[in-house]
Amino acid sequence: MRILITGGAGFLGGSLARTLADRGRLTGPSGREEAIDELVLFDQTATASAPEGPRVVSGDIRDPDVLARLFERDFDSVFHLAAVVSAGAEADFDLGLTVNFDGTRGLMERIRRQQRPPRMVFTSSIAVFGGDLPAVIRDDTPATPQGSYGAQKAMCELLLNDATRKGFLDVRTLRLPTIVVRPGRPNKAASSFASSIIREPLAGEPAVCPVDPGIEMWIQSPRQAVRSFVHAHELDGAALGANRVLNLPGLTVSVEEMVAALGRAGGDTGLVRWERDESINRLVTTWPGRFDPQRALALGFEGDAGIDDIIRAYQQDWGAGAGA
Amino acid sequence: MRILITGGAGFLGGSLARTLADRGRLTGPSGREEAIDELVLFDQTATASAPEGPRVVSGDIRDPDVLARLFERDFDSVFHLAAVVSAGAEADFDLGLTVNFDGTRGLMERIRRQQRPPRMVFTSSIAVFGGDLPAVIRDDTPATPQGSYGAQKAMCELLLNDATRKGFLDVRTLRLPTIVVRPGRPNKAASSFASSIIREPLAGEPAVCPVDPGIEMWIQSPRQAVRSFVHAHELDGAALGANRVLNLPGLTVSVEEMVAALGRAGGDTGLVRWERDESINRLVTTWPGRFDPQRALALGFEGDAGIDDIIRAYQQDWGAGAGA
Repeated sequence: MRILITGGAGFLGGSLARTLADRGRLTGPSGREEAIDELVLFDQTATASAPEGPRVVSGDIRDPDVLARLFERDFDSVFHLAAVVSAGAEADFDLGLTVNFDGTRGLMERIRRQQRPPRMVFTSSIAVFGGDLPAVIRDDTPATPQGSYGAQKAMCELLLNDATRKGFLDVRTLRLPTIVVRPGRPNKAASSFASSIIREPLAGEPAVCPVDPGIEMWIQSPRQAVRSFVHAHELDGAALGANRVLNLPGLTVSVEEMVAALGRAGGDTGLVRWERDESINRLVTTWPGRFDPQRALALGFEGDAGIDDIIRAYQQDWGAGAGA
Repeated sequence: MRILITGGAGFLGGSLARTLADRGRLTGPSGREEAIDELVLFDQTATASAPEGPRVVSGDIRDPDVLARLFERDFDSVFHLAAVVSAGAEADFDLGLTVNFDGTRGLMERIRRQQRPPRMVFTSSIAVFGGDLPAVIRDDTPATPQGSYGAQKAMCELLLNDATRKGFLDVRTLRLPTIVVRPGRPNKAASSFASSIIREPLAGEPAVCPVDPGIEMWIQSPRQAVRSFVHAHELDGAALGANRVLNLPGLTVSVEEMVAALGRAGGDTGLVRWERDESINRLVTTWPGRFDPQRALALGFEGDAGIDDIIRAYQQDWGAGAGA
């Protein structure tokens, strides 16, 4: 079984790669669990290969020649995580549209030429929701994005649903909650602060919170996200039906509740500086904080137990580097 | 004021052009009614210029050079009607995706370079709805297309909403009901039969009905559609808010009710041959037949009074050629 992870140099892509390497087996297009023969990590920049040795390919996902090389042999599974994140896509419309939409379309076009359609797990986002929203987002709440990132993700959802209907591939699209706590450095996601305000103080460093303390966010831990990717991949497509887009389970936590949990975990809450950034505050307030993800729950997806557990898992997984 | 109509060689584009020429004035980006200085009709094939003499430009909407020539001077208004219709887009995925989506994107990209963003009226379709639908489609029913045409239209809706938010243009997207009665010959729209079963018998000719008699359709007359285009164009953008997509008012009529109305209008209902076509029946049954278009009604859009009026208007507008 050959597996491709785009965005493989990213934190979630890397975590997924380690998880798959540890498992060694995965249920794919055959409907049976099979041994993973090859894992290919694709990203724009080369990354160090993991100890288990997945093949690493780097290049621009928008370049057909790069994709042609990547698809020298057929894949059974594609985890498509690569994207220009929210604030990045908002700052550079063309970059967002070409990477997030054209990149996804280019993958789809290349996959169409395969002998057998692979299973694809595509990471969409709760950023497809915006504007005047109901208090609780249901599975049938329409996508009304108020940012280019969300618009591009919603366009991909439609394209990949249609490509699945046409038999080109077999997609499972997951609208990810905000992932908290990400390790490493802040990125250009407008939600990047939600990890910073926990991660940096745990390491004894200051962090800036650019949004109002009362804003509620719909969050999920990295561990749970990776579990969701694998679970989505292994589901029988028939169980998903024609609409392959799922709102994932998560946890509703206000920004001030996150900071309180930081304190309970031994972090210095005084290291969080409240410094509102209008553009980030605007984008984040358009994202919904409460969901009723009945379809995903019925399909066996799970959310996290609580914010304290999420922080504890971060401390376990990223240990000393996290200052724990 | 300079106005562009794409799909200008089509029946609705031509009707709109005549209506605009008759009016001579239109409210556009300035918010004031202004004289129409130039009307440009764009389509893939050249069409005879109307008596009032709009400029006619032909070419492939996917060709950047064609668009560059078309946009030699800025437009104040763009009515974007050009599209590969439903059964055509279903039969040829690439043609549908490149014309319906890339064509719209190419227009948007060209419009971005203008000094002033024009108002744009974009024709989407009720084909964005499909699958497991509520009995009545509401304004907040999500787009879940079950055909490539609907998927491509829904992708354009998202792109143009985002382009409006970014200030590139000022779109008003109308999800058209099935337009009945179209004059002329059948086209590749899966809904083409809905006009044929009235138009052909009125002219003494046979027609094939490829769908079940009980199927309910959400229809609108050509007259009402053109009125909606003009009304949408003249609305203040602020009244529309961030989501520029509107379900238009229409009329719920079953196919057998259409045939009964044909009889009342003097047509020979015996000329309708019921010959079910599985692929058309499948596509048409995925389209919803009942709507509650509250937003459009509140914004002053109107539906037709009844199927008898629609047929009478067709007989008036297309006279002898219609066999009336």
